[in-house]
Amino acid sequence: MKELVHAAARRARIAAGSLATTTRADKDAALHAMADALVAGTPTILEANGQDVDAARAAGTGENVVDRLRLDADRIAAFADGVRDVAALPDPVGEVVRGSTLPNGLRMQQVRVPMGVIGMIYEGRPNVTADAAAICLKAGSAVLLRGSASAARSNAAIIAIMRDALATTPVPVDVIQLVPADDRSSATHLMQARGLVDLVIPRGGAGLIRAVVEDSTVPVIETGVGNCHVYVDADADLDMALAIVLNAKTHRTSVCNAAESLLVHKAVADSFVPRVVAALQDLGVTVHGDPAFCAVHADVVPATEEDHAAEYLSLDISARVVESIDEAIAHIRTYSSGHTEAIVTSSLAASTRFTTGVDSAAVMINASTRFTDGGELGFGAEIGISTQKLHARGPMGLTEMTTTTYVVTGDGHTR
Amino acid sequence: MKELVHAAARRARIAAGSLATTTRADKDAALHAMADALVAGTPTILEANGQDVDAARAAGTGENVVDRLRLDADRIAAFADGVRDVAALPDPVGEVVRGSTLPNGLRMQQVRVPMGVIGMIYEGRPNVTADAAAICLKAGSAVLLRGSASAARSNAAIIAIMRDALATTPVPVDVIQLVPADDRSSATHLMQARGLVDLVIPRGGAGLIRAVVEDSTVPVIETGVGNCHVYVDADADLDMALAIVLNAKTHRTSVCNAAESLLVHKAVADSFVPRVVAALQDLGVTVHGDPAFCAVHADVVPATEEDHAAEYLSLDISARVVESIDEAIAHIRTYSSGHTEAIVTSSLAASTRFTTGVDSAAVMINASTRFTDGGELGFGAEIGISTQKLHARGPMGLTEMTTTTYVVTGDGHTR
Repeated sequence: MKELVHAAARRARIAAGSLATTTRADKDAALHAMADALVAGTPTILEANGQDVDAARAAGTGENVVDRLRLDADRIAAFADGVRDVAALPDPVGEVVRGSTLPNGLRMQQVRVPMGVIGMIYEGRPNVTADAAAICLKAGSAVLLRGSASAARSNAAIIAIMRDALATTPVPVDVIQLVPADDRSSATHLMQARGLVDLVIPRGGAGLIRAVVEDSTVPVIETGVGNCHVYVDADADLDMALAIVLNAKTHRTSVCNAAESLLVHKAVADSFVPRVVAALQDLGVTVHGDPAFCAVHADVVPATEEDHAAEYLSLDISARVVESIDEAIAHIRTYSSGHTEAIVTSSLAASTRFTTGVDSAAVMINASTRFTDGGELGFGAEIGISTQKLHARGPMGLTEMTTTTYVVTGDGHTR
Repeated sequence: MKELVHAAARRARIAAGSLATTTRADKDAALHAMADALVAGTPTILEANGQDVDAARAAGTGENVVDRLRLDADRIAAFADGVRDVAALPDPVGEVVRGSTLPNGLRMQQVRVPMGVIGMIYEGRPNVTADAAAICLKAGSAVLLRGSASAARSNAAIIAIMRDALATTPVPVDVIQLVPADDRSSATHLMQARGLVDLVIPRGGAGLIRAVVEDSTVPVIETGVGNCHVYVDADADLDMALAIVLNAKTHRTSVCNAAESLLVHKAVADSFVPRVVAALQDLGVTVHGDPAFCAVHADVVPATEEDHAAEYLSLDISARVVESIDEAIAHIRTYSSGHTEAIVTSSLAASTRFTTGVDSAAVMINASTRFTDGGELGFGAEIGISTQKLHARGPMGLTEMTTTTYVVTGDGHTR
């Protein structure tokens, strides 16, 4: 398996070398060919997906997981539209990030160039397969796609169709390759192919991400674990606070930018807590309150230490009443996964204090945590949301899939 | 030791939280206080350094290494000037990297914020201690300094003086802390303090850097291993080529941006090789030639495979005659450490081909590899030269020691 993964990575390096100098026009034409092929190949993809779904059911997989795995013609059409959207975005490669003429006459430019070979290790939804392939291709990099075993047939079908489409274009087919998921070790070999793979991006649950971070010798961008907080300040508009909490918690529960924790300033606890609990419970949410929260509203489940740290991804929320904004910030610094925190306040001082006090990829002022999303923020495409500080933080688009090189031009300059 | 390192990291996190909101004026005043204290503390530093030098000699350390360890009043004055230079640079924190109002009225800003806690693991010269402390402080981060055992007394003295200086300012002293070097495990605990340390930067030899990359669970920026190439093209001005090769190889041999490999196009081999070999040998350089190079000039040492990959850091250079620019690019892609490659050519087509073909942090066109340097490129300060593609590539200044956060402001926006 190691030799198989390394051989794929070596082919990817060669293909990436060629892709690095491919024009935007050729890359966009290849993306459109891929999108058309995905639509035309819908029956093939659905057949493979049906086998994955049957196997998951036979293995006793829960219906919510099966639902995420299942494709239909509309979902495949949405993949294809996503690929076309990527084609419409500007090419990040070749952008001059900065440049100047130095005092000695040397001309210096920092130029955006492709990353090279990117490994994606991901779970669940097969839509990541087409998304990641399109984004990496547009950014000039080859991608090695290692999805989950449960989606193996769907992913293989999608990748085969995209590669067949590339074969009709000037883009080398090996810029998109499948890494088989039938053996756990393939992921390990991918994340340890130092010198062959430039970057590994894990997408999935906390367990997958931890495993990649610990075992990888290739640089990693951690994505997506979100224990997002909504803090309702003493100066909050409580109607606005209610709408934001309900949206952040219940608009979609299985995503990383959903709220998992609610913090309420004691000054508004008596008026806000009963309203928010009633509204959350009406929507089927279980509230896990700390002692101060339970003192205001006894009819909630007592929270454990684990609740405050949990990324539920379900109709649960932990809740706490805090003495001050500083206690809210300290709580977030202790328990947050560094994804997104929201404050609801009409106080400029409080919003500034919160923004500089928390240490997360995104801070929402009077807006739902659900806006931490590449599409919502206007990036046009998103390969994941980074919760680490290195290289990229927050939603990652095309730019974040590139690196830079310094090009310095002289006339025989020496030191 | 683990508890000691983690306790230091926890103090650093608290101090970093305070430093993140310290004004530029207060940070600059603290840097000036540190610089003044380093000059005033010269006798103390020299006494500690003398003990390190004596211990190194007693251990049989080579004189070239001892020379790098040895300080004098001029070198300490140079540290202090370096710290004052950092004070004079603009503050990267708070810079708005991008911002816009989204179609739904949300106002989005990507703002530069401090990294948090940075671990430096370094060998050799004690100047890194003052440099790294100053750069991290200005960029708003706390630093944990883990130098080599051989410089332990010097580093401890420098750090104690800087901390004493901070105690007279609003900057918390724990933004600069020593991690003891008397136990190898302290470096391991530092690079595995995930959640407490945001970034580890190793500076030193290839062995140190490999060990950190392999063992760290904290994100790492690889620095400084430089197997830099000079390629003399068919269309080169050979006088210029000679000057660049000699400068790149011999201006300073112990640095990562020194040239270690020479590639000569066959079209100019007969005229250039005898000249460059004679000039290099006059300066005491040993040339290790491949068979094609030896065929042109027999009076050199035959090169092994290891020679082509070597970062000599000495008066040695590997050399090869290539059939074409593509063979030069392929050689570089095979053997380079990704630091800096130079081409000497008067052909625009060749310079473009070379720039897009190699895959390194910097490309010099008609200039010495020695210009890959934060000071030379006008960054004002440099904490190392990244040879990886993630986050920072090439010389790293203040900006590269920061991360960003998205601040999104709404008026009750929900999805």
